[in-house]
Amino acid sequence: MPTPIILDCDPGHDDAMAILLAVGDPRVELKAVTTSAGNQTVAKTALNARRMCALAKAFDVPVAAGYPKPLTGMLLIGDDVHGETGLDGWDFPEPEVPLHSAHAVDLIHGILADSPEPVTLVVTGPQTNIAGLLALHPEDKAKIKEIVCMGGATHRGNTLPYSEYNILVDPEAAHEVLATGVPLTYCGLNVTHQAPVTREVLDRILDVGTHISEVSAALLAFRSRTYDQIWDLPDAPLHDPVAIARVLDPSLVDCVEAPVSIELRGEFTRGATVIDLYGVTGRAPNALVATHLDTERFWDVFLKALAALG
Amino acid sequence: MPTPIILDCDPGHDDAMAILLAVGDPRVELKAVTTSAGNQTVAKTALNARRMCALAKAFDVPVAAGYPKPLTGMLLIGDDVHGETGLDGWDFPEPEVPLHSAHAVDLIHGILADSPEPVTLVVTGPQTNIAGLLALHPEDKAKIKEIVCMGGATHRGNTLPYSEYNILVDPEAAHEVLATGVPLTYCGLNVTHQAPVTREVLDRILDVGTHISEVSAALLAFRSRTYDQIWDLPDAPLHDPVAIARVLDPSLVDCVEAPVSIELRGEFTRGATVIDLYGVTGRAPNALVATHLDTERFWDVFLKALAALG
Amino acid sequence: MPTPIILDCDPGHDDAMAILLAVGDPRVELKAVTTSAGNQTVAKTALNARRMCALAKAFDVPVAAGYPKPLTGMLLIGDDVHGETGLDGWDFPEPEVPLHSAHAVDLIHGILADSPEPVTLVVTGPQTNIAGLLALHPEDKAKIKEIVCMGGATHRGNTLPYSEYNILVDPEAAHEVLATGVPLTYCGLNVTHQAPVTREVLDRILDVGTHISEVSAALLAFRSRTYDQIWDLPDAPLHDPVAIARVLDPSLVDCVEAPVSIELRGEFTRGATVIDLYGVTGRAPNALVATHLDTERFWDVFLKALAALG
Amino acid sequence: MPTPIILDCDPGHDDAMAILLAVGDPRVELKAVTTSAGNQTVAKTALNARRMCALAKAFDVPVAAGYPKPLTGMLLIGDDVHGETGLDGWDFPEPEVPLHSAHAVDLIHGILADSPEPVTLVVTGPQTNIAGLLALHPEDKAKIKEIVCMGGATHRGNTLPYSEYNILVDPEAAHEVLATGVPLTYCGLNVTHQAPVTREVLDRILDVGTHISEVSAALLAFRSRTYDQIWDLPDAPLHDPVAIARVLDPSLVDCVEAPVSIELRGEFTRGATVIDLYGVTGRAPNALVATHLDTERFWDVFLKALAALG
Repeated sequence: MPTPIILDCDPGHDDAMAILLAVGDPRVELKAVTTSAGNQTVAKTALNARRMCALAKAFDVPVAAGYPKPLTGMLLIGDDVHGETGLDGWDFPEPEVPLHSAHAVDLIHGILADSPEPVTLVVTGPQTNIAGLLALHPEDKAKIKEIVCMGGATHRGNTLPYSEYNILVDPEAAHEVLATGVPLTYCGLNVTHQAPVTREVLDRILDVGTHISEVSAALLAFRSRTYDQIWDLPDAPLHDPVAIARVLDPSLVDCVEAPVSIELRGEFTRGATVIDLYGVTGRAPNALVATHLDTERFWDVFLKALAALG
Repeated sequence: MPTPIILDCDPGHDDAMAILLAVGDPRVELKAVTTSAGNQTVAKTALNARRMCALAKAFDVPVAAGYPKPLTGMLLIGDDVHGETGLDGWDFPEPEVPLHSAHAVDLIHGILADSPEPVTLVVTGPQTNIAGLLALHPEDKAKIKEIVCMGGATHRGNTLPYSEYNILVDPEAAHEVLATGVPLTYCGLNVTHQAPVTREVLDRILDVGTHISEVSAALLAFRSRTYDQIWDLPDAPLHDPVAIARVLDPSLVDCVEAPVSIELRGEFTRGATVIDLYGVTGRAPNALVATHLDTERFWDVFLKALAALG
Repeated sequence: MPTPIILDCDPGHDDAMAILLAVGDPRVELKAVTTSAGNQTVAKTALNARRMCALAKAFDVPVAAGYPKPLTGMLLIGDDVHGETGLDGWDFPEPEVPLHSAHAVDLIHGILADSPEPVTLVVTGPQTNIAGLLALHPEDKAKIKEIVCMGGATHRGNTLPYSEYNILVDPEAAHEVLATGVPLTYCGLNVTHQAPVTREVLDRILDVGTHISEVSAALLAFRSRTYDQIWDLPDAPLHDPVAIARVLDPSLVDCVEAPVSIELRGEFTRGATVIDLYGVTGRAPNALVATHLDTERFWDVFLKALAALG
Repeated sequence: MPTPIILDCDPGHDDAMAILLAVGDPRVELKAVTTSAGNQTVAKTALNARRMCALAKAFDVPVAAGYPKPLTGMLLIGDDVHGETGLDGWDFPEPEVPLHSAHAVDLIHGILADSPEPVTLVVTGPQTNIAGLLALHPEDKAKIKEIVCMGGATHRGNTLPYSEYNILVDPEAAHEVLATGVPLTYCGLNVTHQAPVTREVLDRILDVGTHISEVSAALLAFRSRTYDQIWDLPDAPLHDPVAIARVLDPSLVDCVEAPVSIELRGEFTRGATVIDLYGVTGRAPNALVATHLDTERFWDVFLKALAALG
């Protein structure tokens, strides 16, 4: 029985790869893709999600757009990494997957209501939609099996020295999601940096020899160039698929329980995920925090899914 | 032609009086009452709104409940002022007005969609519902004529030295509503304290000689006792009806344009409405701020509406 | 027996008047004038203190300069009110009073050490010097009878909507002084605004008919023009002498005990003195807060002192 | 020609080792030891500094005590690591080195005034004394060659997830020192963790075979036990001597220029040194940040100094 998941994302190149992994691996059933404002505007992230679902021939997966901005404050897009379209590096045709007419929050709420079993939410963008859902429908908490997110870091951030982009865009949303008490796993930069897209990885992707693998390699090559420019990281880490991997096969991603606090007020540290790995704060653990990726098996899983898409 | 309004409130004794004024005065048409979590939980404020609409025989006005807590953080109820029910001081029967099945946000959204003309929102509780509405449906901005709120203060607050209760409960919501740029008027404590419920006012209310006036007097007498205990104010000011009064007849409430900032971060000042009356901050005006109430005419208007309810 | 005082100030026009009052009234013995960086740089405030002591023929009062900037952050001078010299409006000769060679902190420390009885500190500028003194010499606490400051407000501020200039310039210093537990009285804007320099007051000053009164009237006239420009207050309140008045004759200034917190972190409210007049915060009183000035007697005292200077 | 240094510290076990290194290595001339409130109260850190100078037979090095608490707020001592005395693990006799009568600030100021050449300050505790010095005597800036501190971290902290103890105790002091523009080098946890006191290191220390080496080994063994309890680090890193090493021989510690900001306001991140290694904030570099320790040569230098003490 595959695990039913909803992927809430902001594609974004690595979100795009997460969509492919979620469609291609039989261990999850992708029930919907919803998009947040993040790497680009919500209109662009929704278009990009439709492009990737069309590319993956996931014509039955509904794609809906969510909130156009964070719960508080202005949107900070990530066009320095992802470009003007949010998915620069390939010239996509008009996607054959339509935009669902409902708001992301309503689509998720409906799926949770109709599902006979609790659903896993994988969140690879800012957590605005999930915070909005649980504010409007607190009772939906019972229908969510767990939330696995790409976000935060145990050590350094990226957009700011201690702040990772997905959390920094909407710290209040991350704080609210954490406060609901829904089981929550953070796959942060410390673990996603264990999945660098090396030259060898790119070659293996190209060797799959399909149209999808060609597009994937082109997208990842574009992104590695921007990572190299900003952070001297020519082998850009593939963040978002790690969260899917954790759901597919938890043994791929080791986690520890820890107290996590979202910094809402710092002048230089807003959006930091303050993770107390050694119990120095006296707070109780409130999340699982990923610490180790089985890199080799991760790439095997990813490439197998890519190949399965045909 | 009466002005169409939606009253978003958290009854609460003075919200209750605002409902009576809105029903009883022919210059406004009350299209809905929605309730927020504030003076009491949203379930209790919705029940109280239904009680007041039933008392005022406003059987056709839909009453819906909204968000159960602020956008961020925990709810701080105001039971020190309003008691266990949120409307202590009278023993109400089961109200003949039902709870509308929609969420407050959906009810407001539907009314705005159906209205041929822009609608005025009067907000006399925390601004959670309005912030939630404009986050989900940014385009609704065009259907709102203006927002007139009871909230904030130009001088001192009440729940904290510089923070007024409605804003303190959900400062992020107040900030977000302000940031939308919808025309916004603050009727703060500085102006509502110009409407103290004196012994003479209570007598005039009782002199109306109806069941409604008897209930009103009992409610106000209860509230004056709690105000006296907390703030040495035996003649408790009647905050919320002042916002209705501003809509009924703008000449009742003088306003000035001013820059308003909501303090989100202070250790002792969170929720303060920082109002720059003298232009010392260099910020541009972004709201109207009420400064003066025509107290005598205000009471005349209020009492006339009470009498009109029969 | 006159009360021995040290006046730590940042002249500044109203500080200048405080010096005259302290020299002219026999009920205090002015043991030193020390200056802080505030209305102008510490070099200018020290020069202005020397000018005023020379004008008042207080040739034996040592004048020393203190810290050139607040404990943390940059200095915000008040030249919008006090002009380029910090005492614009009169053309002073080179003062016959020298600058004492010691740092303000060392001068105060020495006077406290030598004094057979505890000394009262009157602080009418930012509290940097006093915080610095008590950090270097915590034991000096026992030699201070009380601190009476001009600073803060129970209602609105001046430089920011809720922040008064003296506290805003160095909120950490104000916080530290408060935390020492030395008896502390705040004469804030709420009480100093009860001492407006009206046309009638100016005429009474001129009627004293001395050189000193002529200089005083010219200085106050200059300051009233800047107050009128900034805050529409042509009758500028005479802040700093109120703190001296409280020491001369406590019955001139009524005070209440209250919990006072200095806001260090607010985005729009840094430097606010958050004064809990109604006990809503549950904190214990930690200061006296002036609430009422006997305006008529205050001016009588001030004019008598001016006349006594000859 | 040895480099003249003043060591401002809060011994503390690793400060104690820094004193030994500074006395034992001929490339620096230790002109004074001053102590701050940190690992223990300033009285205890001063006593411990005297003990270590006596142990090292540095009878001519003056030892003075500084501020008893941080610039703002309360002192947080580090007795969980360093014990009740601040130097638990050895039973010291009454030291033959006296406490200098001057305040640390006055002692440093005097040495700077008398020195024909600029002096290097090595700061291995909270930076209170240095901030206090530069506030009282801004002109001393010209007499300081550079400041090399142990403090902060590029990645994780220790006392809080992102805050290192020395900076957390007095973030305002660290901010003020940084703001003076004196050349400043941070030897943070990221580099000091490259100097773990392993079993092998302890054995090499014991092998020196002197009384001093016996005391050192006992102190370090005590500290390793507390590190193991708190952070699962049985091989406790030897923080403070790394700062001395950087002065002795800069080639031991590689550094990069980077923008450093001290977080003063965060709820969970106060005291974090926010170091922008990749230029993502657009701020200009304002400090040197140590990134790499030549561990092998570091231990050689340390052991040679220990041996030289006899």
